[in-house]
Amino acid sequence: MKRRLFIINGPNINLIGRRIPTIYGDKSWRDIETDLSKICTDNDIELAFFQSNHEGQLIDKIHQIYAMDVENEDSNTAIIINAGAFSHTSYAIRDAIEAVQIPTVEVHFSNVHAREDFRQNSVIAPVCIGQITGFKDASYMLAVNYFIKYWE
Amino acid sequence: MKRRLFIINGPNINLIGRRIPTIYGDKSWRDIETDLSKICTDNDIELAFFQSNHEGQLIDKIHQIYAMDVENEDSNTAIIINAGAFSHTSYAIRDAIEAVQIPTVEVHFSNVHAREDFRQNSVIAPVCIGQITGFKDASYMLAVNYFIKYWE
Amino acid sequence: MKRRLFIINGPNINLIGRRIPTIYGDKSWRDIETDLSKICTDNDIELAFFQSNHEGQLIDKIHQIYAMDVENEDSNTAIIINAGAFSHTSYAIRDAIEAVQIPTVEVHFSNVHAREDFRQNSVIAPVCIGQITGFKDASYMLAVNYFIKYWE
Amino acid sequence: MKRRLFIINGPNINLIGRRIPTIYGDKSWRDIETDLSKICTDNDIELAFFQSNHEGQLIDKIHQIYAMDVENEDSNTAIIINAGAFSHTSYAIRDAIEAVQIPTVEVHFSNVHAREDFRQNSVIAPVCIGQITGFKDASYMLAVNYFIKYWE
Amino acid sequence: MKRRLFIINGPNINLIGRRIPTIYGDKSWRDIETDLSKICTDNDIELAFFQSNHEGQLIDKIHQIYAMDVENEDSNTAIIINAGAFSHTSYAIRDAIEAVQIPTVEVHFSNVHAREDFRQNSVIAPVCIGQITGFKDASYMLAVNYFIKYWE
Amino acid sequence: MKRRLFIINGPNINLIGRRIPTIYGDKSWRDIETDLSKICTDNDIELAFFQSNHEGQLIDKIHQIYAMDVENEDSNTAIIINAGAFSHTSYAIRDAIEAVQIPTVEVHFSNVHAREDFRQNSVIAPVCIGQITGFKDASYMLAVNYFIKYWE
Amino acid sequence: MKRRLFIINGPNINLIGRRIPTIYGDKSWRDIETDLSKICTDNDIELAFFQSNHEGQLIDKIHQIYAMDVENEDSNTAIIINAGAFSHTSYAIRDAIEAVQIPTVEVHFSNVHAREDFRQNSVIAPVCIGQITGFKDASYMLAVNYFIKYWE
Amino acid sequence: MKRRLFIINGPNINLIGRRIPTIYGDKSWRDIETDLSKICTDNDIELAFFQSNHEGQLIDKIHQIYAMDVENEDSNTAIIINAGAFSHTSYAIRDAIEAVQIPTVEVHFSNVHAREDFRQNSVIAPVCIGQITGFKDASYMLAVNYFIKYWE
Amino acid sequence: MKRRLFIINGPNINLIGRRIPTIYGDKSWRDIETDLSKICTDNDIELAFFQSNHEGQLIDKIHQIYAMDVENEDSNTAIIINAGAFSHTSYAIRDAIEAVQIPTVEVHFSNVHAREDFRQNSVIAPVCIGQITGFKDASYMLAVNYFIKYWE
Amino acid sequence: MKRRLFIINGPNINLIGRRIPTIYGDKSWRDIETDLSKICTDNDIELAFFQSNHEGQLIDKIHQIYAMDVENEDSNTAIIINAGAFSHTSYAIRDAIEAVQIPTVEVHFSNVHAREDFRQNSVIAPVCIGQITGFKDASYMLAVNYFIKYWE
Amino acid sequence: MKRRLFIINGPNINLIGRRIPTIYGDKSWRDIETDLSKICTDNDIELAFFQSNHEGQLIDKIHQIYAMDVENEDSNTAIIINAGAFSHTSYAIRDAIEAVQIPTVEVHFSNVHAREDFRQNSVIAPVCIGQITGFKDASYMLAVNYFIKYWE
Amino acid sequence: MKRRLFIINGPNINLIGRRIPTIYGDKSWRDIETDLSKICTDNDIELAFFQSNHEGQLIDKIHQIYAMDVENEDSNTAIIINAGAFSHTSYAIRDAIEAVQIPTVEVHFSNVHAREDFRQNSVIAPVCIGQITGFKDASYMLAVNYFIKYWE
Repeated sequence: MKRRLFIINGPNINLIGRRIPTIYGDKSWRDIETDLSKICTDNDIELAFFQSNHEGQLIDKIHQIYAMDVENEDSNTAIIINAGAFSHTSYAIRDAIEAVQIPTVEVHFSNVHAREDFRQNSVIAPVCIGQITGFKDASYMLAVNYFIKYWE
Repeated sequence: MKRRLFIINGPNINLIGRRIPTIYGDKSWRDIETDLSKICTDNDIELAFFQSNHEGQLIDKIHQIYAMDVENEDSNTAIIINAGAFSHTSYAIRDAIEAVQIPTVEVHFSNVHAREDFRQNSVIAPVCIGQITGFKDASYMLAVNYFIKYWE
Repeated sequence: MKRRLFIINGPNINLIGRRIPTIYGDKSWRDIETDLSKICTDNDIELAFFQSNHEGQLIDKIHQIYAMDVENEDSNTAIIINAGAFSHTSYAIRDAIEAVQIPTVEVHFSNVHAREDFRQNSVIAPVCIGQITGFKDASYMLAVNYFIKYWE
Repeated sequence: MKRRLFIINGPNINLIGRRIPTIYGDKSWRDIETDLSKICTDNDIELAFFQSNHEGQLIDKIHQIYAMDVENEDSNTAIIINAGAFSHTSYAIRDAIEAVQIPTVEVHFSNVHAREDFRQNSVIAPVCIGQITGFKDASYMLAVNYFIKYWE
Repeated sequence: MKRRLFIINGPNINLIGRRIPTIYGDKSWRDIETDLSKICTDNDIELAFFQSNHEGQLIDKIHQIYAMDVENEDSNTAIIINAGAFSHTSYAIRDAIEAVQIPTVEVHFSNVHAREDFRQNSVIAPVCIGQITGFKDASYMLAVNYFIKYWE
Repeated sequence: MKRRLFIINGPNINLIGRRIPTIYGDKSWRDIETDLSKICTDNDIELAFFQSNHEGQLIDKIHQIYAMDVENEDSNTAIIINAGAFSHTSYAIRDAIEAVQIPTVEVHFSNVHAREDFRQNSVIAPVCIGQITGFKDASYMLAVNYFIKYWE
Repeated sequence: MKRRLFIINGPNINLIGRRIPTIYGDKSWRDIETDLSKICTDNDIELAFFQSNHEGQLIDKIHQIYAMDVENEDSNTAIIINAGAFSHTSYAIRDAIEAVQIPTVEVHFSNVHAREDFRQNSVIAPVCIGQITGFKDASYMLAVNYFIKYWE
Repeated sequence: MKRRLFIINGPNINLIGRRIPTIYGDKSWRDIETDLSKICTDNDIELAFFQSNHEGQLIDKIHQIYAMDVENEDSNTAIIINAGAFSHTSYAIRDAIEAVQIPTVEVHFSNVHAREDFRQNSVIAPVCIGQITGFKDASYMLAVNYFIKYWE
Repeated sequence: MKRRLFIINGPNINLIGRRIPTIYGDKSWRDIETDLSKICTDNDIELAFFQSNHEGQLIDKIHQIYAMDVENEDSNTAIIINAGAFSHTSYAIRDAIEAVQIPTVEVHFSNVHAREDFRQNSVIAPVCIGQITGFKDASYMLAVNYFIKYWE
Repeated sequence: MKRRLFIINGPNINLIGRRIPTIYGDKSWRDIETDLSKICTDNDIELAFFQSNHEGQLIDKIHQIYAMDVENEDSNTAIIINAGAFSHTSYAIRDAIEAVQIPTVEVHFSNVHAREDFRQNSVIAPVCIGQITGFKDASYMLAVNYFIKYWE
Repeated sequence: MKRRLFIINGPNINLIGRRIPTIYGDKSWRDIETDLSKICTDNDIELAFFQSNHEGQLIDKIHQIYAMDVENEDSNTAIIINAGAFSHTSYAIRDAIEAVQIPTVEVHFSNVHAREDFRQNSVIAPVCIGQITGFKDASYMLAVNYFIKYWE
Repeated sequence: MKRRLFIINGPNINLIGRRIPTIYGDKSWRDIETDLSKICTDNDIELAFFQSNHEGQLIDKIHQIYAMDVENEDSNTAIIINAGAFSHTSYAIRDAIEAVQIPTVEVHFSNVHAREDFRQNSVIAPVCIGQITGFKDASYMLAVNYFIKYWE
């Protein structure tokens, strides 16, 4: 059965590698994409990336993935989301994830629990399977590892 | 005098009928549109629908309705808005409604007061005429009823 | 099948028409009763009114309606309640509504969300079907409309 | 012109003299009535007392005073209220006072600001002319003095 | 010496047996009365019951018990109170209990600590001897047991 | 025995009559002094006034009154204080009043309970006999009345 | 069928009788043990006591009781716990009780609701059957009474 | 060296001049642009305007300015931002400003500190040089003045 | 018409230049005075400075300016105030500014919104025209600019 | 260079597999150990397990690992900790982790963000590298994966 | 090298010995001065005392000590401060201490942590070396001891 | 009479000298013991040390000291406690100290008031004589000094 994984990045994640490297790491997103693609290819997973600074486009994307998933009944679909600063405020993204019922894992580059107060609460976390925070780009790698195991 | 009614739906409302039916009802939005259109036609009201997952597009829409309203001085314009999860956070939509001074009614499918804490506060409500919550698709019907009576 | 609707008004609602007309409207309660009775008669609904400034009498009334409803198994019973200022504090009325399991709609003359902080929370709302606030006397009319549709 | 003053006492005030004398004083209510009646007679004021442990009866009383006041257009009416523990929770009494627009002064035997937290907030105070607390039975006497001066 | 025990029930307790049996138990109040009366008769205690949905009547009752207790100097009087939802808000009932200085035990059918937030605070508890919650009808039985032992 | 009364006014009270007359009244402080002096002379009370915008001077004054009171053992001394905005923040004035143990009454021109949130808490009130608020200049007159009666 | 009851006491309970007798009573724990043992013997209940000032030992004990209960399938096991000051903070004890699913009743010597704020919340209560507080050593006796009745 | 200044306006600022003139002033944005352009031309500053009701477009714009700034190493770039209602909630805009490290000044037409509670906190302010609020259109002029001086 | 501007500095501002230069800048107050005086002379404004560590002296000064302003009816008077740490607590200074009704602008050297929590709230701001924070000594210069423009 | 990994489990984790399987999974800890040991052996990592219900023993263990790490200068040491319910309250464990400066990852079986309020805050997280929650036993596996990658 | 120690006392400390002796001790300040002077003389420390009820004078004093300290480069200067009730509110004194960078120790006669809530937070403590509370006059002696040791 | 002093250290204090030296100082605990022992020997005080990472062992120790103290009626016993992170959460240690009524002084190496929020509240302080914080190892020395003086 086909396995499809979507990595959705929210606002400012496109600046990764340039933004406060001590917190976010110094790898560019392009390098991270290369690494993650390799793991997925090795494990026979179709991987797609999406980034937007627009809350609405992130929601639209989740709806599209859902539509696609409904069309392809015999496939596995999953989402890894780093909603950036929207993680702390966007009940609309939360509602989208909850509505489409596609297994989703939340990731963050930084250890949000060791930073400003407002970063310590994720309104998205309660509707995800789990949350991985603080491992810089490895947070994504671990989430991919999870789905590899999950789909075994 | 011409009477124009706009129904504006926010994020994830397009999934209605598929999303947690015990809370939102199981009617599809298409069916709801048919019902509402019929009532409006019967009462000689021009009805238009708009849905977006983008906060900015909802604000733009309110501005457009305002521009149209200014152009057509001798008409009645009103808005029924279900801003979805934006209801709880979007001071920008609130400012838009307050600025354009078009009579607006807030509606919700679910009884937001019986759900999660974050759904119990609407930042939009204070600048609307009133709020109707909990009657599933009938919330819209009641809001339309109000404007029929209001325009008598 | 017989359809019975009870409108229960809490403290100070008897002063309606005299109390801050910009907020509550200037119709007297007698006029509102006349309007609502007409709609109900037209729709073959038995309508009864009750007002009290006593929290205990409001609870007793709900219990009586329940007893009557149990006796008349083949009938439909519903309640429209405007508990006035008790809405914000009376867990006892809430418990009564929850206990009797009769479909109930909460209404308010004023847009409570645009007023003092203490008026923005209703402890009754979570055990009602829905809430209609801000349409002055039309709040009641819309609630009646809802039950007409609900009983179709 | 006739001047009418109503003293309304809420729950447990009937036990005065017996309840924690260090806080409430040791005069019985009967003695306090005698003292206050004398001052009023001396100043040509008609004085009436009312006490109830029922929130609803206090509201009913305020409505009755209002009805009487409306009937007697050429008179002065005023209220002195000690709502006891209802002072801290009864938005319904507050609404009654606000609705009838009769000049009202709030009094308390004890210095509520030096006691439990819950006694330090009065929801009634914002709709009264002023508040007098802490002078035991003299709190009433001072409120009467105020109206004597107010009506001069 | 004569021993008199009063069981005072607040709002909605009369519906016991019918209201959410998983929480409140499925015994009717009549059956509970029978059980409790038997224990009291066996232990030579005069037992009386009172229920009201009116906060004021509960306070009046406490005052009456006090008056009776004062008249009968050589007797023991005690109160078991389940103030229902008033437990969480009624400072007036609290003041009444504190004023009359009759030994009082607070009981609840349900484990209020495992339910909604508002049920977890009792404003009456601080002026009672103790509190027994969560044992359904046995909460009353245990309170009676306490007074049997207390009066030994 | 000699009776001495000190009226201490805090910051901005010297502007009375000019500052928001709807809230503070339109009498100048000079006129109020005249009125109060007359009552005191009539009742054989020595009256002194003190106003300062300096928290420290208010405290110094209280200490001086204390020193004077200690010297004149056979006299009665009392304070009426309107600490203005310091009422809401000055624990130092509170400590001064508490330390000197001279009977003190707190007064306010305006009904502080009907104004901004920060005006609704007085840190001074818990160490005073009582508080009189909302009667404009009559608040002082009532406080004087209290001491006349207190010293009877 | 065999009935086994465990009484688990947390930190400082071993000092009972010596620690603030007005709050905790003046009976030593040895005397309380004697009383409780007698009741249990009379009712054919095997009773065991355990006290520790170590949170971890309390959890270990709960696990041991669980292991023993699993081994003896045809027996009844129950716990009465007074976790002392751990009641207000130990989510670990709460998790232990919730995990082992053995019927547990929480007791306290003192009326925790009439004491410091931090004593008014029990994090253990939500996973117990019920809570008995304020009856000094009789709190234990009532809990034993409950299980006698519960096992009838 | 070239000096480039960007003025970024958030939601509803396009309605300026029409929206509550007592708060926002009655100048249209076009007039404000003319005034600001003149000052900039006089001071040899390249000025550009951008307005959007879309949070995502505001972030995109900040990213574009950053890209442009990186390309033109020998120039000065600065931003004046009025994020409208997004100021109070958009951690995503905050992250964008913090990430690009371009000197930014926050402005508001109205004195946000004298309005609704939700307007008194800016989540953007901590990552800006400073904040200018309350001077209507002059807030922008003062910010421009600052950069003129800053670039001297 | 004559134009008079007063710059009032609160506690510790006299240490400027020596106190944490990264936050407050390294210019001494003398240098800042020279710069500001020059601008005012150039624009025909009479400029006066006042600094005090005494809250009371700041209030006295505001009263003096008011007295002077009242005497010179045909002049323009304005205040620029940096109340230092008093900004966060002094309702007395707030009352003074509100009472005298002289146009006032609040300034701060540092970006108070990027510092400790207690510095982020100004109790003075709501009664000022606006607030300028974060531009070190240029905050004063911008405030002066505002009045130059305001008086045009 | 030798690589040593310690897995430290806090209170009640020994019951895993038996405790609410829908939340914690149904694998026993023995099975989880087997799986994790295999991965570590394959990657040449020395793996050790420790579980205790005693906060103090968890701290002692962290100190021992530290002592061992200091002795073996040329090795890599890391900790994976699931402190169970201590995660939410134990500042002492936090201090231990912070003091020893050994790289530590926090894991949880359940998605703590989707459960009770008290589970949503970890006082340990701010001193760890990162946190992995919600993947049942796979949370440990992912943490091991991280260290494999970290030590590459 | 010369060593200079300043003891600064805030409001009401001059009343020590007379004010609530159970809390503050019964030694007069004069006696305390004698004791402290002796210790300082014995240890070759120049000791000076200052007391004021004026917040501004306390700040002025700190500035003067700073000026003196700057003039005498080769000396040691230190401050012991008991700011009385200003400890809980005066950010201005805090700013003064922080600005002058002279080693300062905060002392209190009473155990502030065992008294009213408002006494439990010191806004001055974070900019001092340490805090000594609860030892009555010995709090000063211990602080002097510290500086003797610190200057060794 | 014999004088016995116990120094009890809580979790992680054994790491002193190695843990963040800028905050805790760089002296090892061994060196601190030597210093303190010398002072005690010089003053004829028997000194004993105890450290544990186990909350329960700290409580047990306090109980043992109490037992010893009771046995030796004619001696003086005192405790100096640094409960480390337990200071902020352990109501059980607080209850132990309160129960045994042995004079106790709380000390901390660091100035807890200048650190994380959770370190600023001590639940132990209210039952101690006083608190000494921020003087690194000298905090202990000052506490010893206090008892030397206290026992004079």
